[in-house]
Amino acid sequence: MPISNEQAETTVRRYLDLVANGTAAEIAALYADDAVLEDPVGATPLVGREAIQAFYATLEPMTVTTELQTIRTCGGEAAFQFHIETDTGAGVAIMEPLENMKFTEDGLISSMRAWWGDADLTFG
Amino acid sequence: MPISNEQAETTVRRYLDLVANGTAAEIAALYADDAVLEDPVGATPLVGREAIQAFYATLEPMTVTTELQTIRTCGGEAAFQFHIETDTGAGVAIMEPLENMKFTEDGLISSMRAWWGDADLTFG
Repeated sequence: MPISNEQAETTVRRYLDLVANGTAAEIAALYADDAVLEDPVGATPLVGREAIQAFYATLEPMTVTTELQTIRTCGGEAAFQFHIETDTGAGVAIMEPLENMKFTEDGLISSMRAWWGDADLTFG
Repeated sequence: MPISNEQAETTVRRYLDLVANGTAAEIAALYADDAVLEDPVGATPLVGREAIQAFYATLEPMTVTTELQTIRTCGGEAAFQFHIETDTGAGVAIMEPLENMKFTEDGLISSMRAWWGDADLTFG
């Protein structure tokens, strides 16, 4: 049975909070063992929680803020747009990607795909 | 080779224009023969251009306006949010779904998935 819309939205909000304030291990714990992450779409997908944790580890030294802009939930999935600012130390990179998350019946993320391109990146 | 970001966006804009002003046959012609449409995500997917044309035929008697709100293109795909108003004769239904389109190398839509729920529907 697909997870409820409420559970999907709660997980997305928890995810964005952890991207800003959590550790890579905490973010990876939201994902299923065999989850697939494609960010951006077109890049080689990362498979498995270990590879996914390594992906988020690159954010750990940076100051990140996130804000959910719009979300739609149905059929055990979420699609959403969010605002993210990443302070690399050399400047602030700003993006507003669109993402799709699919979930296992246990509420873990089984698939995350993010659509954005270099043209969507601005520097503040 | 994936289609370019420009081609993906042009097709999305043409699609939204035809949803507002075109016929079901014109919309279906944007899709590949064996395309899959899932609208909303969680519903049984429609497979093939004939089933897809029948889906859009339900819009033909209605007055529809559409407006692209945000779009991201990468990896031969588009993700976007749009505003749609559908005048059924008994009132105007308003929605702002999120959608993902994948394309064939020829630029036809091979997959369309739309995320929205009854809670996102308002009446004006």
